[in-house]
Amino acid sequence: MSETKILLTEKEAPTSWYNVMADMPNLPKPPLHPATKKPIGPEDLAAIFPMDLIKQEVSADRWIEIPEEVQEIYKLWRPSPLYRAHRLEKALDTPAKIYYKYEGVSPAGSHKPNTAIPQAYYNKKAGIKRLTTETGAGQWGSALSIACKFFEMDCLVYMVKVSYHQKPYRRVFMQTYGANVIPSPSDTTESGRKMLESDPDSPGSLGMAISEAVEVAAQRDDTNYSLGSVLNHVMLHQSVIGLEAKAQLEKAGDYPDVIVGCCGGGSNFAGVSFPFLHDKLTKGAKVRAVAVEPAACPTLTRGKFAYDFGDTAGIVPILNMYTLGHDFMPPGIHAGGLRYHGESPLVSQLYHDGIIEAVSRTQRPCFEAAVIFAQTEGILAAPESSHAIRVAIDEALQAKEAGEARTILFCLSGNGYLDLPSYDAYVSGKLEDYEYPDSLIEESLKKLPVTE
Amino acid sequence: MSETKILLTEKEAPTSWYNVMADMPNLPKPPLHPATKKPIGPEDLAAIFPMDLIKQEVSADRWIEIPEEVQEIYKLWRPSPLYRAHRLEKALDTPAKIYYKYEGVSPAGSHKPNTAIPQAYYNKKAGIKRLTTETGAGQWGSALSIACKFFEMDCLVYMVKVSYHQKPYRRVFMQTYGANVIPSPSDTTESGRKMLESDPDSPGSLGMAISEAVEVAAQRDDTNYSLGSVLNHVMLHQSVIGLEAKAQLEKAGDYPDVIVGCCGGGSNFAGVSFPFLHDKLTKGAKVRAVAVEPAACPTLTRGKFAYDFGDTAGIVPILNMYTLGHDFMPPGIHAGGLRYHGESPLVSQLYHDGIIEAVSRTQRPCFEAAVIFAQTEGILAAPESSHAIRVAIDEALQAKEAGEARTILFCLSGNGYLDLPSYDAYVSGKLEDYEYPDSLIEESLKKLPVTE
Repeated sequence: MSETKILLTEKEAPTSWYNVMADMPNLPKPPLHPATKKPIGPEDLAAIFPMDLIKQEVSADRWIEIPEEVQEIYKLWRPSPLYRAHRLEKALDTPAKIYYKYEGVSPAGSHKPNTAIPQAYYNKKAGIKRLTTETGAGQWGSALSIACKFFEMDCLVYMVKVSYHQKPYRRVFMQTYGANVIPSPSDTTESGRKMLESDPDSPGSLGMAISEAVEVAAQRDDTNYSLGSVLNHVMLHQSVIGLEAKAQLEKAGDYPDVIVGCCGGGSNFAGVSFPFLHDKLTKGAKVRAVAVEPAACPTLTRGKFAYDFGDTAGIVPILNMYTLGHDFMPPGIHAGGLRYHGESPLVSQLYHDGIIEAVSRTQRPCFEAAVIFAQTEGILAAPESSHAIRVAIDEALQAKEAGEARTILFCLSGNGYLDLPSYDAYVSGKLEDYEYPDSLIEESLKKLPVTE
Repeated sequence: MSETKILLTEKEAPTSWYNVMADMPNLPKPPLHPATKKPIGPEDLAAIFPMDLIKQEVSADRWIEIPEEVQEIYKLWRPSPLYRAHRLEKALDTPAKIYYKYEGVSPAGSHKPNTAIPQAYYNKKAGIKRLTTETGAGQWGSALSIACKFFEMDCLVYMVKVSYHQKPYRRVFMQTYGANVIPSPSDTTESGRKMLESDPDSPGSLGMAISEAVEVAAQRDDTNYSLGSVLNHVMLHQSVIGLEAKAQLEKAGDYPDVIVGCCGGGSNFAGVSFPFLHDKLTKGAKVRAVAVEPAACPTLTRGKFAYDFGDTAGIVPILNMYTLGHDFMPPGIHAGGLRYHGESPLVSQLYHDGIIEAVSRTQRPCFEAAVIFAQTEGILAAPESSHAIRVAIDEALQAKEAGEARTILFCLSGNGYLDLPSYDAYVSGKLEDYEYPDSLIEESLKKLPVTE
């Protein structure tokens, strides 16, 4: 039998990130200023981002060198293993070959440190003393807490108040790495105070937490803001996932027919698939890339390609992207990391141009797939990752039905240790399925675009 | 800088376990029958264990082949990485080199699957349809649940009732892998019913859960019992940890001066250290092996080397070991996996003969060490593992004070994702320290069943 884990040595690790903008037939339209609605320049972003990241945001270079300090820290968990899912294949009795890239081995338990580390690095280099951010489920906040501690910076995390109280494990995780975690809305910012005045018992929202984090960062010279998905430089940093996977598949003498990634803001899907899109866009490779989103928050599959705000309060730059509308409120599904109304502009443009595919799944079949996966491959997956597992299994079953070979690569974006309450709901039969009603999506989409 | 992770390929993985009994100057005294107090033979164990494991329990062979089916499953997470703790060394400003073997990468998050998998394998081979066991903190129950699912056997876990209610994450973990988890004491066994009659609100204990699990296994031909520590065959299976670490250190051109492992029933300490004791006992290697136990349950450092029961009810074989007395009730420290009154007879004999060392630590300095470790190396350690981290750091600081080189290897036995409430207690300053009073230990030691 061939190997179970295909490993790269540290010497074989990528030394540059891949920038898909160098190969795209159409680049996304520029971001707009939230007040003037005119295209923004680097100077507009300088209040909250360091210049190195702003340059990466607009770079046309295909390869951008990974700083040595970042490469050193990546070695704590990278190159991450690529698994051949022998036991899952056998259980499905499929002729398909299934590979998965496992990002749950990072100290935060997900792929998020891939961008948290370089973001902290570039901010430290720019003399910044503190980073602010928002977190919902807590995965991004966990990653940034570790990154800030590694670069001896303070970390201020606005955590959606309802999650702060319902997910104490994640809060404690961030505090263990020295972060200051504040339930949002809070009285520490003007926008928080306004929110509390109008609704003292507000459970908070990601949009409100973004507003608080950005407000603090914009006011203080020694403080910047950090975002865990959506932006171009985040997609860039996550390309290490796909670059490693390519090298590992080459070692195994294989190449994927289809790549599957879960998709919320887009960073995990982009990370695993963009380096293969390089082959597709420049060498005509036939590889398919499939983004899987929750049916409860179907941004690509049922949203609109338009300019929209990234936050509820409308204080961050307006992006051209697939969106469900900036006040879209997805139901409380367990894949908290996929509950975002918008989408990476790069992923959006590629989808609009027909270069990638997108599908949606409700959460019960995703958990069903995650349990099959756990019981065969052993690993307990994050609810976000379960979306990728579901579609990878579906692809394998289609190949079986068609009686054809198919090589499937999916990204297992994180482990599920801190998501066991959601497995409890599933195994005890209490998990609800959500499909978002057309009427509500139409209502929300009426407010688009916010320009023109 | 040298590598951060020293990896072995699957082809370089050990194909045999190491049996320290082949090299010990004195073997442990034989186990005694709990009723007759005469030495037991294989036939006495056959009601609850398969013959392959009984043979391993008494084998004098130095090397015992790892079955191919077990090797295949080990590949899901083995060989586990050996880390050079560059960032921790730098933070401590020590001339010592610190290596750690990370067992938290297993699907159960600890070293326990190393023995759960072969135990399930040998039972399956013997035609057994179901395994029973007890679990307190839940790590062992998690490992056995996965192992039973892999070999298509049922798994019945008696979980200490107070843990069942206080640690729902662990319960759900086991259920996700198909285990039947019953809070103990229960009305499903005679011993459980007796316990409930005398105390309907009993919180349960590990001793009671063992009695329930053994009772069920003894009654049914298709059901066996499985133990996650203490016994000789468990120490044997865990030797993969140290065998891999030896090969990895050889790749790094290094050899340890001191090996550190946390010690409850002894399986993690034995796993990492016994393969190096082979060098010490047969080739005169100068390596030290240090077992670290909690000051709240100081079996080796303050217990007695004597025959004692392994369970509270006194229905399992009497073992010659270091013990605090079979009704010793350690305080509710967070390192639940180290709260056992007894100790592996092999570890006990080696300690009695001066071949290994033992120290104890209270839990606050252990958590302090775990937080330093998390903030430098990134990984959140299990509370059990924090005992090894504490002493590894102490050794590194002693080396610094003495101005001497020292190569330290410790085993990071598991990750701490499911132990975040204990970190919460630490970071919020609420963690209590326990040192067990002499008078209570003396009292408990008066009740040993066999006196000579």
